[in-house]
Amino acid sequence: MTPGTADLTVRTLGECRIDSPLVALPADGPTTEHYVREDDRVLFDDTLQMVAARGLDSGELPGFEPTGPRRKIFFQPSKTRVGIVTCGGLCPGLNDVIRGLVRELNDHYGVKKIYGFRNGYQGFISKYGREVVELTPQSVSGINEYGGTILGTSRGEQDADEIVDCLEHMSINVLFVIGGDGSMRGALRIADTVQERNLKIAVVGVPKTIDNDIPYIDQSFGFQTAFAKATESIRGASVEARAVPNGVGLVHVMGRHSGFIACYAALANNDADYVLIPEVPFELDGENGFLAHLRRRVERRGRAVVVAAEGAGQEFLADATHPGHDASGNRRLRDIGQFLRHRIADHFAEHGLEMNMKYIDPSYAIRSVPANPYDSVHCIRLAHAAVHAAMAGRTAMVVGRWRGRFVHVPISLAISKRNQVDPHGDLWMSVLEATGQPRTFG
Amino acid sequence: MTPGTADLTVRTLGECRIDSPLVALPADGPTTEHYVREDDRVLFDDTLQMVAARGLDSGELPGFEPTGPRRKIFFQPSKTRVGIVTCGGLCPGLNDVIRGLVRELNDHYGVKKIYGFRNGYQGFISKYGREVVELTPQSVSGINEYGGTILGTSRGEQDADEIVDCLEHMSINVLFVIGGDGSMRGALRIADTVQERNLKIAVVGVPKTIDNDIPYIDQSFGFQTAFAKATESIRGASVEARAVPNGVGLVHVMGRHSGFIACYAALANNDADYVLIPEVPFELDGENGFLAHLRRRVERRGRAVVVAAEGAGQEFLADATHPGHDASGNRRLRDIGQFLRHRIADHFAEHGLEMNMKYIDPSYAIRSVPANPYDSVHCIRLAHAAVHAAMAGRTAMVVGRWRGRFVHVPISLAISKRNQVDPHGDLWMSVLEATGQPRTFG
Amino acid sequence: MTPGTADLTVRTLGECRIDSPLVALPADGPTTEHYVREDDRVLFDDTLQMVAARGLDSGELPGFEPTGPRRKIFFQPSKTRVGIVTCGGLCPGLNDVIRGLVRELNDHYGVKKIYGFRNGYQGFISKYGREVVELTPQSVSGINEYGGTILGTSRGEQDADEIVDCLEHMSINVLFVIGGDGSMRGALRIADTVQERNLKIAVVGVPKTIDNDIPYIDQSFGFQTAFAKATESIRGASVEARAVPNGVGLVHVMGRHSGFIACYAALANNDADYVLIPEVPFELDGENGFLAHLRRRVERRGRAVVVAAEGAGQEFLADATHPGHDASGNRRLRDIGQFLRHRIADHFAEHGLEMNMKYIDPSYAIRSVPANPYDSVHCIRLAHAAVHAAMAGRTAMVVGRWRGRFVHVPISLAISKRNQVDPHGDLWMSVLEATGQPRTFG
Amino acid sequence: MTPGTADLTVRTLGECRIDSPLVALPADGPTTEHYVREDDRVLFDDTLQMVAARGLDSGELPGFEPTGPRRKIFFQPSKTRVGIVTCGGLCPGLNDVIRGLVRELNDHYGVKKIYGFRNGYQGFISKYGREVVELTPQSVSGINEYGGTILGTSRGEQDADEIVDCLEHMSINVLFVIGGDGSMRGALRIADTVQERNLKIAVVGVPKTIDNDIPYIDQSFGFQTAFAKATESIRGASVEARAVPNGVGLVHVMGRHSGFIACYAALANNDADYVLIPEVPFELDGENGFLAHLRRRVERRGRAVVVAAEGAGQEFLADATHPGHDASGNRRLRDIGQFLRHRIADHFAEHGLEMNMKYIDPSYAIRSVPANPYDSVHCIRLAHAAVHAAMAGRTAMVVGRWRGRFVHVPISLAISKRNQVDPHGDLWMSVLEATGQPRTFG
Repeated sequence: MTPGTADLTVRTLGECRIDSPLVALPADGPTTEHYVREDDRVLFDDTLQMVAARGLDSGELPGFEPTGPRRKIFFQPSKTRVGIVTCGGLCPGLNDVIRGLVRELNDHYGVKKIYGFRNGYQGFISKYGREVVELTPQSVSGINEYGGTILGTSRGEQDADEIVDCLEHMSINVLFVIGGDGSMRGALRIADTVQERNLKIAVVGVPKTIDNDIPYIDQSFGFQTAFAKATESIRGASVEARAVPNGVGLVHVMGRHSGFIACYAALANNDADYVLIPEVPFELDGENGFLAHLRRRVERRGRAVVVAAEGAGQEFLADATHPGHDASGNRRLRDIGQFLRHRIADHFAEHGLEMNMKYIDPSYAIRSVPANPYDSVHCIRLAHAAVHAAMAGRTAMVVGRWRGRFVHVPISLAISKRNQVDPHGDLWMSVLEATGQPRTFG
Repeated sequence: MTPGTADLTVRTLGECRIDSPLVALPADGPTTEHYVREDDRVLFDDTLQMVAARGLDSGELPGFEPTGPRRKIFFQPSKTRVGIVTCGGLCPGLNDVIRGLVRELNDHYGVKKIYGFRNGYQGFISKYGREVVELTPQSVSGINEYGGTILGTSRGEQDADEIVDCLEHMSINVLFVIGGDGSMRGALRIADTVQERNLKIAVVGVPKTIDNDIPYIDQSFGFQTAFAKATESIRGASVEARAVPNGVGLVHVMGRHSGFIACYAALANNDADYVLIPEVPFELDGENGFLAHLRRRVERRGRAVVVAAEGAGQEFLADATHPGHDASGNRRLRDIGQFLRHRIADHFAEHGLEMNMKYIDPSYAIRSVPANPYDSVHCIRLAHAAVHAAMAGRTAMVVGRWRGRFVHVPISLAISKRNQVDPHGDLWMSVLEATGQPRTFG
Repeated sequence: MTPGTADLTVRTLGECRIDSPLVALPADGPTTEHYVREDDRVLFDDTLQMVAARGLDSGELPGFEPTGPRRKIFFQPSKTRVGIVTCGGLCPGLNDVIRGLVRELNDHYGVKKIYGFRNGYQGFISKYGREVVELTPQSVSGINEYGGTILGTSRGEQDADEIVDCLEHMSINVLFVIGGDGSMRGALRIADTVQERNLKIAVVGVPKTIDNDIPYIDQSFGFQTAFAKATESIRGASVEARAVPNGVGLVHVMGRHSGFIACYAALANNDADYVLIPEVPFELDGENGFLAHLRRRVERRGRAVVVAAEGAGQEFLADATHPGHDASGNRRLRDIGQFLRHRIADHFAEHGLEMNMKYIDPSYAIRSVPANPYDSVHCIRLAHAAVHAAMAGRTAMVVGRWRGRFVHVPISLAISKRNQVDPHGDLWMSVLEATGQPRTFG
Repeated sequence: MTPGTADLTVRTLGECRIDSPLVALPADGPTTEHYVREDDRVLFDDTLQMVAARGLDSGELPGFEPTGPRRKIFFQPSKTRVGIVTCGGLCPGLNDVIRGLVRELNDHYGVKKIYGFRNGYQGFISKYGREVVELTPQSVSGINEYGGTILGTSRGEQDADEIVDCLEHMSINVLFVIGGDGSMRGALRIADTVQERNLKIAVVGVPKTIDNDIPYIDQSFGFQTAFAKATESIRGASVEARAVPNGVGLVHVMGRHSGFIACYAALANNDADYVLIPEVPFELDGENGFLAHLRRRVERRGRAVVVAAEGAGQEFLADATHPGHDASGNRRLRDIGQFLRHRIADHFAEHGLEMNMKYIDPSYAIRSVPANPYDSVHCIRLAHAAVHAAMAGRTAMVVGRWRGRFVHVPISLAISKRNQVDPHGDLWMSVLEATGQPRTFG
């Protein structure tokens, strides 16, 4: 019984005639887009069928293929040989995915030959001499309790031809790649090479991005665990900043291209007064700049907490010769945390205001923890989905969750852009409301 | 740049001709629905615009109104008086929502008169004599660190007319109700009474259901915290069952009408061998019944862990006069955990098999904890959304997250049915795959 | 440079002439012993040497032998065969001890033959058919991350002669028994039998008591982890009790013979209003009984939290025929938690006072968790000490920490009495002060 | 019934004639002291009484005065005015102590005038203008859930005369100082000044040292919480090091003068391969130096984890002009973590060996967390003890736990030396055994 439009319409008490006080805050400009357009709608269930019912060919509407087991599959399980590889930086849940793949392949499809390639794509390249490990339900038992990846990882590309040589040599039929967007580009090259050679090797990715920046995927595995861990650092900085006169807590969190971790961690316990993310440029100097704003807040309230995503304010780091720093400081300047740490200290010193900086950079401590229960569930469901896809012969794709359902996404699409915090969306709006920071600095 | 259908199509290696080994498991029947239909699609972004582009009036398509601040609002903030009430059982995040409401109302809209009504709807009824507390940013500071609700709660209905009398008497313009489906029915009656009296009082709900069983809402606040906590009990039962000869761990978790907590908790660390939920009936007795299956598993593997949602197998509890239990046992029989505990013990005894039962019922320990970071973020975003909705004059509605966006849902719709685990969906499929339990008992 | 008595004397401002207000509380009686005697002293370091310096033979003073490696040992490591067994109820840290034993034996002494006997003393008795497992550094790697014991456990005695037969048959030279006081009695019988047969088998115990009730041992492993876990349940009960009108939270914690877990857990977050322990008898009925006191507190403050150790009030449970409970209720009556639950409910009902009971019994959830970092350190140090002792030929002893040092304690002494909360000591005094409960009920 | 010497003697199987394999490790030298002297004994209970029974005046034996309530007290509670101040770096449990003091003073002694001085000793000095806050049971309710100190803190001394002026001016009778050894020196100066002026103001300290380095105190509050937190960082470094080829995890933990945190954290999960502490000097260079040893271990096993206490290897940092670092590097060189980070990288580079460094410095994240349950209990017991001492007129003293009992320790003694890890004691022995690192480098 799908409700009609009328059923979905929310009652209103009357016409809205009063200017919202929130309107007053920004000058006219793009930030007004925080306001919701009147004709905006979130589609209800089963639109597809309804569209069809209205005489339109629903096939014309773009849609992802859902994940799940198919009645007919492509590979003969008893003859299928599978490879698994983990690439790039650590992320909570890698071992959950490995374990989920092995258990699903072994227990449900009866695939017995499963190989782990060590240290990312290096594992396929003979010159590195990485051993290949056989993966069994026994060898993956309990690995999900640990952070990291039992297969090890590495960064960087390797030659797709040499990788496919290795796959052919080992008679691998299915390759699962767990990695970030760089690794997915590599996986696509592998799939393309497979196709060029007219081989039948499925390449299926499980996208890994602790920063949650892969498009067409609601939330990537490990993200919740990671931001929850970052929350602890913000709490630490807040506790420290409160304990001293004019305390400034500064926390440097992950997020090279997107500020999701910074935003979620800042919202989670509301200790942050400022959140700086790559998506929202800011000015440091000047009367309305970040530094002056921070200084006034500290003067007024005795303390402040700043959360900076590593990708924020990269424009400042390009200028390697910032006054007061010699050339050997270049490398340090690449780190926005260290950069802000010094600029804030200099700014307070220039204004003759006492300031006690408490700097926390949790770095690896965030990404090396085991997945929390939610992420564990998410990983096992992604692993099940990836196995079903691969056994049904899908290739050059990743599994993901999109609008509440698990779907197959072509790799080409998953690497076509980055998922970022929308500066006009409700997440950033909530951050602004929770922190009280201005919409723009400068 | 919306991709076309072609861009979204996943490459396949060839035609699928092999019967899936998963097919072999069930006999033909409804369980085949675990398999994905070939024409199934998950709609891509902005379908609305695409539909319109194809000449169809998108307004015809049912859709929810998105949450967020409106440029014009209905209530004059400086004159607005707000009431907040929490009803029903505890759920992680209640204090986060209260705090989020107060902060958003006060800091951003400038609403200064905010009142908390104590102990649910009793707080409006004079005979209970509950005091009304004024809520300020100071009084809600840090309350999110605690479980429970600073306003207290109670179960049960109160007379809508008397409630609206109270609201009128106190000149309340906006009432926020944080509660479950019973409380939302109450909220709807209040909104209806308000309408009948031609008053201008907005009634906006923040739906609370630790069981995640409210429809049209992707995931309710507190759910992740709750199932993570339940996971600990399952782990405990598993550790105990492993330590003894023929150990049976039995864990009784929340979930009166839906098995989401049981399913997620069981998937999270994969310690469970059996998951029993309200949505999937089962037979206890007989050669293929649950008891015989459990016994054989224990004989074969030396142990087993059973997770039972409180609403599972209610049909067995109707029969109050189970052999060996006298009439005074009735009340105990209403508890499926205690019921299974005795039936399992009896069954093993009948078969002369040693068995060491380890029973854990975490009960209140699950719902009284503070929200985890994810749920905290979710709560604050729901609170922001609820304030925006109320200030814009929306009423008789709840806020929720649907397909990745926050939306306004009419209360009538939110109470029209229950969200349940789909016995043919991918969540239950993953549970079956992870536990290895059969699709049916009996 | 040992300080003299003068150096250790604390300055005082003058003579104490004012009656302490704490004195007023109890009537004259044994409770006055909470007050410190003026001539009481805690001995400073190296008393032994000082006594000797004063011309007394320090050898006359009773003292334990400290643990640690000896220059000369008794067993030839390369020929030594070791057995390990875990007995009784689970306790956090069992796997830490097993791992510590294996690593120390293997890595430092070079002992390669280490065998784990499964399911407690059953593992030595052929009729049970428990397999013996070889323990290596590899097989114990990471086991400390899990609760429970990889060797399994069981309760109850087995024939010492048959056990020693098994040890002889397997040429075991050293047996480590990790278990509680019952198991230590068994270990002593094994050591005695070994001695009677004139064998050279060392029997060394690592005392396990989650209740911290083994004498001559400052704190047993797992205790801190256990009471920290119990603290969570008390918090849960407190949160629940605060949320409802006249809420009574009742928490049933471990502690059959001693109330250490109850006391520490209650002190840890100060949510408890009443702590009932085996060491302090109480009256239920009458104007000054526990029930009336509790009722008045709830009337006055709207709520109360009660923590009951399982061994508290056992005298009430002897009377199986409590009114309102039929004979089949006997077993339930043995449980003080359930008993109090019903008596409190009855009492409030008799006085016509609304009451909302929230009962939490964490049971196995407390003892099945992995050891916390402190307990892990404690376990590894005990394991190292036990290995040094056994290799040096000590037998019929346990390792423990006494007054800040690790020592060898003869089993006969360790089972000679129970360690209990001193009703006149400072721990119980702090509990009384923190809860505000009266010194006696009735 | 005190057991005699005979009862305490452990049975031995026979004479020890075999050289311990552990003996072989060190050359003859001081490290042999790891072995236990045969005549060593740990005194049994009630030595005092036994000594007296042997005709010696027990008063001659040095002993601490035990804490606890006295029947007669010095200050009239209704007229007593109390000050509380927290000084120095943060430590888990500060708020627990504040709360315990206020509750004990108010609830049990009936002291109503309790003042908190803000930001350490600055709070007494007018030029800083810190406000004084009144402390009540309400204002300290729940503060123990937070890290840090509600009173704020500061480092550094202030003039004792000006502080006593302030105490006189405010008619303070009792001052509680919660702080480290520097603060205790200040407290002693205050007590001395009080005495010189012939005032009746008690100065009682609660010693705070996250490093556990205060002498005559078994374990300082916050220590367990702190090292448990440090354990997480070591785990993170270990997980990272395992995931990459030739991974070196380096963790910099607190411990300026003592290595207790490093030792306990390293023992807790056994991930560390090297522990460097201030108490044990080491060589960096040379064939047997730390760097070469580390490199060989990485070559052999593919990874290593190093834990360095901040006070380790300070001798290397004195040389500010280490080759390859210019003058501006001075400050960085003061940090042994950063120093080792660069020296290890240089060393591997010099030997042409790939190395992936993962550096974690948890810094403030360790000390800003709330106390764990054990430390909470410890804090409340210390607070109770401190109040009893002060009300009984004791001054110039601190409370502590010594050999299992809470005692009064003169400040002069508590600041007379530092508690450190004994390089010949069983803690360091266990660290060496658990890590497998050599007794000396170089």
